[in-house]
Amino acid sequence: MTSARADRLVGRSVARREDPRLLSGRGRFVDDIELPGMLHAQFVRSTVAHGTITEIDLTGVRQVPGVVAAFTADDLELGDITARLGRPLSEFVPTAMPVLARDRVRYVGEPVAVVIARDPYLAEDGLEAARVTYAPLPPITCEEQALAPDAPRVHAEAAENTLVDVGLFATEGIDEIFDQAPCVVHVDVRTGRQNALPLETRGAVAQWDAREEQLVLHTCTQTPHQVRTVAARCLRLDERAVRVIVPDMGGGFGLKCVVGREEIAAAAAALRLGRPVKWIEDRKDALSASFLAREQHYTARAAFDADGRILGLDTDVVCDMGAYSCYPFTAGIEPLMASAEMPGVYKVPAYRVRGRAIATNKAPTAPYRGVSRPQYVMAMERLMERAARELRLDPVEIRRRNVITDFPYTGVNNITYDPGSYLESLDLCERALREAGWYDRQTAARAEGRHIGIGFSCFSERTGYGSAAFAQRKMEVVPGFDLAEVRMDTSGAVTVTTGTISHGQSHETTMAQIVADALGLDFTKVKLHQGDTDRITYGWGTFASRSIAIGGSAVRLAAGRLGDKLRAIAAAEWGIPPEETELDRGRVRRRDDPDTALTYEHLADTAYLKSHLLPKDIDPGLTATAVFDVHNDGTFSNATHGVVVELHEGTGQVEILAYFCVEDCGVAVNPQVVEGQCRGGIAQGISGALFEQITYDAQGEPSATSFMDYKVPTAHEIPEVVIHHLETPCAFTETGAKGAGEGGTIGAPAAVLNAVNDALRPTGVELDNTPITPETVHRALTPRTPEQTP
Amino acid sequence: MTSARADRLVGRSVARREDPRLLSGRGRFVDDIELPGMLHAQFVRSTVAHGTITEIDLTGVRQVPGVVAAFTADDLELGDITARLGRPLSEFVPTAMPVLARDRVRYVGEPVAVVIARDPYLAEDGLEAARVTYAPLPPITCEEQALAPDAPRVHAEAAENTLVDVGLFATEGIDEIFDQAPCVVHVDVRTGRQNALPLETRGAVAQWDAREEQLVLHTCTQTPHQVRTVAARCLRLDERAVRVIVPDMGGGFGLKCVVGREEIAAAAAALRLGRPVKWIEDRKDALSASFLAREQHYTARAAFDADGRILGLDTDVVCDMGAYSCYPFTAGIEPLMASAEMPGVYKVPAYRVRGRAIATNKAPTAPYRGVSRPQYVMAMERLMERAARELRLDPVEIRRRNVITDFPYTGVNNITYDPGSYLESLDLCERALREAGWYDRQTAARAEGRHIGIGFSCFSERTGYGSAAFAQRKMEVVPGFDLAEVRMDTSGAVTVTTGTISHGQSHETTMAQIVADALGLDFTKVKLHQGDTDRITYGWGTFASRSIAIGGSAVRLAAGRLGDKLRAIAAAEWGIPPEETELDRGRVRRRDDPDTALTYEHLADTAYLKSHLLPKDIDPGLTATAVFDVHNDGTFSNATHGVVVELHEGTGQVEILAYFCVEDCGVAVNPQVVEGQCRGGIAQGISGALFEQITYDAQGEPSATSFMDYKVPTAHEIPEVVIHHLETPCAFTETGAKGAGEGGTIGAPAAVLNAVNDALRPTGVELDNTPITPETVHRALTPRTPEQTP
Repeated sequence: MTSARADRLVGRSVARREDPRLLSGRGRFVDDIELPGMLHAQFVRSTVAHGTITEIDLTGVRQVPGVVAAFTADDLELGDITARLGRPLSEFVPTAMPVLARDRVRYVGEPVAVVIARDPYLAEDGLEAARVTYAPLPPITCEEQALAPDAPRVHAEAAENTLVDVGLFATEGIDEIFDQAPCVVHVDVRTGRQNALPLETRGAVAQWDAREEQLVLHTCTQTPHQVRTVAARCLRLDERAVRVIVPDMGGGFGLKCVVGREEIAAAAAALRLGRPVKWIEDRKDALSASFLAREQHYTARAAFDADGRILGLDTDVVCDMGAYSCYPFTAGIEPLMASAEMPGVYKVPAYRVRGRAIATNKAPTAPYRGVSRPQYVMAMERLMERAARELRLDPVEIRRRNVITDFPYTGVNNITYDPGSYLESLDLCERALREAGWYDRQTAARAEGRHIGIGFSCFSERTGYGSAAFAQRKMEVVPGFDLAEVRMDTSGAVTVTTGTISHGQSHETTMAQIVADALGLDFTKVKLHQGDTDRITYGWGTFASRSIAIGGSAVRLAAGRLGDKLRAIAAAEWGIPPEETELDRGRVRRRDDPDTALTYEHLADTAYLKSHLLPKDIDPGLTATAVFDVHNDGTFSNATHGVVVELHEGTGQVEILAYFCVEDCGVAVNPQVVEGQCRGGIAQGISGALFEQITYDAQGEPSATSFMDYKVPTAHEIPEVVIHHLETPCAFTETGAKGAGEGGTIGAPAAVLNAVNDALRPTGVELDNTPITPETVHRALTPRTPEQTP
Repeated sequence: MTSARADRLVGRSVARREDPRLLSGRGRFVDDIELPGMLHAQFVRSTVAHGTITEIDLTGVRQVPGVVAAFTADDLELGDITARLGRPLSEFVPTAMPVLARDRVRYVGEPVAVVIARDPYLAEDGLEAARVTYAPLPPITCEEQALAPDAPRVHAEAAENTLVDVGLFATEGIDEIFDQAPCVVHVDVRTGRQNALPLETRGAVAQWDAREEQLVLHTCTQTPHQVRTVAARCLRLDERAVRVIVPDMGGGFGLKCVVGREEIAAAAAALRLGRPVKWIEDRKDALSASFLAREQHYTARAAFDADGRILGLDTDVVCDMGAYSCYPFTAGIEPLMASAEMPGVYKVPAYRVRGRAIATNKAPTAPYRGVSRPQYVMAMERLMERAARELRLDPVEIRRRNVITDFPYTGVNNITYDPGSYLESLDLCERALREAGWYDRQTAARAEGRHIGIGFSCFSERTGYGSAAFAQRKMEVVPGFDLAEVRMDTSGAVTVTTGTISHGQSHETTMAQIVADALGLDFTKVKLHQGDTDRITYGWGTFASRSIAIGGSAVRLAAGRLGDKLRAIAAAEWGIPPEETELDRGRVRRRDDPDTALTYEHLADTAYLKSHLLPKDIDPGLTATAVFDVHNDGTFSNATHGVVVELHEGTGQVEILAYFCVEDCGVAVNPQVVEGQCRGGIAQGISGALFEQITYDAQGEPSATSFMDYKVPTAHEIPEVVIHHLETPCAFTETGAKGAGEGGTIGAPAAVLNAVNDALRPTGVELDNTPITPETVHRALTPRTPEQTP
């Protein structure tokens, strides 16, 4: 592949192709889909956290005017959604998640029956007429209850509530290292249970297409082919009899990369009734009954030498998975990722870890943006801060002494890190803060009694997980490869079809940039098609920051092959070797005579409409496909975040005064898009650090089921983020890009927490948990009177 | 590819997959498509055959309640539909067919304006309010007018009304051969102008999909990708911005293999209005303003030796193309096919031919089932009959002495015929009639004064035209190759996607048979997808009996490749060479240990979901594609038809007493389907011979615009057809199949005409033209009184 163009698009902040559509109301989301005769589904949901169902009486439901049908698990006879591990792992117990609860309920909000009515409001009326009787069982609502001896079990098929127990790494002699270390610090970090909170809640429109003998399931998912697999299994259909179509999506963040129960139930109802069925989740259900995330508990210690160099790391992590293992990312994924990757950007010579996932009577979890990384980075960065204090080192300096600088670096966790800018990003971030005057302002503010703090976080993020990396996770399915097809039509316009699926990540823009460059073609001549399981053999979808690294590489390879074919056809017409041609602005040129060129339209005309003129070894048509996979440990994006906060005494408010992000995702295909990812992720990370949390009371009732109780930031709470780019190209992706989707979310909580602790330094209080509520800050800033002392 | 199955499906009359859907009302035809906000189009059509448009006043139309818009050519500014030849051919004059008439109209029914309304009836109301003024020009309504010196020209850009004049073959010394031949016979054969008359008229639903930036055009066409090309050009869009989807179709017969004007106009209106537009042709428009066919005139002579062996053939053929050359099959196709292929099944040592297409002020023509073959076979078979009479030879015997028996045979026309059963089919057909007692019954009936006749026709049909054969036709586009994709999903079910498009030919059944055999897979696990330009790179569609020969070969190749991949994956798992495995009933077996097998589900699971277990040289996924083309002169199906008629004196009715067809289309993938094609084709051929005709009066007004005037047979007029199969497998298609779509239509008119002439033998009258009307027969059977003698 050769392109003579100097005006390459990759690396430029080309304006988003998606925006004209989305900004002018021409987007099409699931809820925009209207089909003749369409019915609407709502779900009768469990009102108890744990119990056996003694009776479901839907007689009254079926009498509500406008209600067309109501189904229980027994009515629909569906297969269960069961996430398994691909290889036997004695520490993991697979647990079945029925589409509708059968016999037993395990969390408040669990779907028990589906009501189908003429409109969604009548369906809600139907819900009120449902009579479900439960025999309550004691709910498990926290780690302590779950792990208690003789605790009631969430799943009868498991001997205990711990469903995954991994102890991946344990360096020999680690106890001696800790015993002899000059400095050992401890942290106990807990992170709150959150909802990933995409702007668009979940939803589906299911329709049986009698002509195609296919269930057409429009749904907002990050993994259309996985939904197809599960829907086909639950509905007992061949996979080809299910077509999943994903229209525009208002965010996913991992919540939509596991398969939901409601879309399967809606599909089953559509099959039963022979009419289209729409289900749109409301915010109450989204908060209480979709998939939650983040609740983890790290009990960690780290050993340092006197110079602040890490000698060892010893961690116990417990992930509260809620009631079920979700498909395909079993409960195993969170403890496995935390265990494997916690050393992060630091050189850790000795490591011990135990990772567990426990079942509780709470809504199940999905791998929310960053997965375990926001949490283990928080634990790790707290350890660094604590050691810095202990050793009276500057927080930046202690990091500087520990970050990996020689690449590729194979860690104690057996993971090989490809080159990154760990030290450079740290230095640049500190310099940026310093040059912006924040250190001086902090000093001045403190003198005035104001509580200003500066905090950092350093992290790298494994992206572009290929099948090799996923295979280590022992999942039932092993994502990794992805596919792309690049097709030029007879008019010389190009359609790119991918297995990845953009739900805010601007793939319509970035994939077109990659193809336009590869083919020397006008950007507007390239159109992306995604999100239709019938249109591409397979796709693993978009999660784990894999789309540009893996999907984009497949696109680049396929475009390259198409370019080669164009050159071969032109070369044959000229009777010269293809090497003597080049692609240039919609033409193939002769290198020896650049004024002689054949347009793509001309070559396409030959390839399709005059195929008898093609040489025998060139197939007609202009379609090229490519598969790309990563056969090593993946590629590591990295960043340093630096944040300045001020704590307000009266309110306990944490105000973010400044936010700096120095990120390196290799080649940024579209820097503006990368910045959008950073800013959005940072907003979510800040929100997790300061605002969002769903707690459960002793009965297992969730605390926050609306935006009245579930606090999310507005533009007011999110600061302007100053972003600096570094570029350490990836050596093995086709574009040099690494993943950029999750970084912001990973770095923000730790940086904010560290900044708050820095601000609190004069008080002596240290906080290790998120969210950092105003109450906590207020309490920390308020000198205790004697009677308040315990 | 190896399959151990003894129970092969190819060759068996498997029940049609299409029938449960179609018989239970679950088919989806264009008119079944309902979209929110859909509008309806009707066309203001020319009331004069030839004239200039002096004024179009749509003011009144726009005031009709329910009318939303009305557009003329000037309003829509569309590109023209222009069929060109791919290589310069001085004898052909390309003529532009505007989507809506501009300035000039050239036939009664030509679309002049489109009216868009809330429903189709209101749109019809709108038509009545249109005021179009014409300055009439003298219409050209027949060959004699068209070819007259100083005839008015239908197209100003052409110097005369002859738009194609080909004289492909002229053997040296042919005049001497005729001069010296012991027997020279002449015929003057004219065939009536017909409509192909699919049960479903034409129609389209056009919608602009703002999200995909695509015009989605549901239309009933045999050539979806060709419609895409033309629509994109006329609408000035990239081709990828047009998606053509073909739902179920109620027949096409060639009428739907050219691009219509109305679907483009409907699409343009949908673009303009931003709302879906439906157009459904009514029968009046179908008969008068769609595409007609068949009207040809052969002035031919043949020279024979005393033993009845052909010495030479000399033909002039004039094809009345009507007002326009249609895309992509220009006016050239009819005279070119007739000229090239007229010698047919006979050994013709010397040949001269002149083929012309003339423009007239009649509705344009499309290549109706059989294209020129029903006509040239009629001319050729009339020559054989006449020579038999002249030489007092039995009509079967004279054919027996002339049919090609040594294959491959390269004719005087430079076409190489692959093996067929020309002689065997003739012998078998005659024997079948004789054994059924028809010769005896004819003798007995004649003795009673009844008019029973026996007639035969022998023909071969070039099918599986590859690009090599089409390239000879010098068309702008050169059909030939076709594509197939065979994809197995993770459940082991298979989807086949083809570029051909079944519109009654049972591809859902036959393609599945081919794939099921190739993969050793249950027939019900295979589903065909067709008719969506976005779903396959390209497809030439279904015409010229190409689908099974070419499309089926591509399907077989692709399925074979998929089977090879399954074997390779299994072999890798076992660590043995792929050659030591075989496919058997949904499993790959070890040859050395047939009890050891891996199911397709297991292998699919590896190929998709555990791709890390695949060997490095095997790509993930289970999709295989193949291209197939024919690089020689094609493969020739053949048949002999034998028919027994009785003429009824009082009414002039031609009653068909018996019909025998001995056909050889190579391997019949599904004999019942082949028989369906034969029976349907024979019905159409009989209808052309006896019933259907659209004449034009001197003003160019068509005679038949409804079923009141356009006579079509019912079940009563169509006899039971006795079909015998012979099987001469094609050596170069992947299944051994030849095309079977057109044969019935080709053989019937000549056989019926010969039988009628045989019945008329006692009267001395000979008929050479079709349709053979009751008036003609009545006149022939009624002894002329002296005053009736001219």
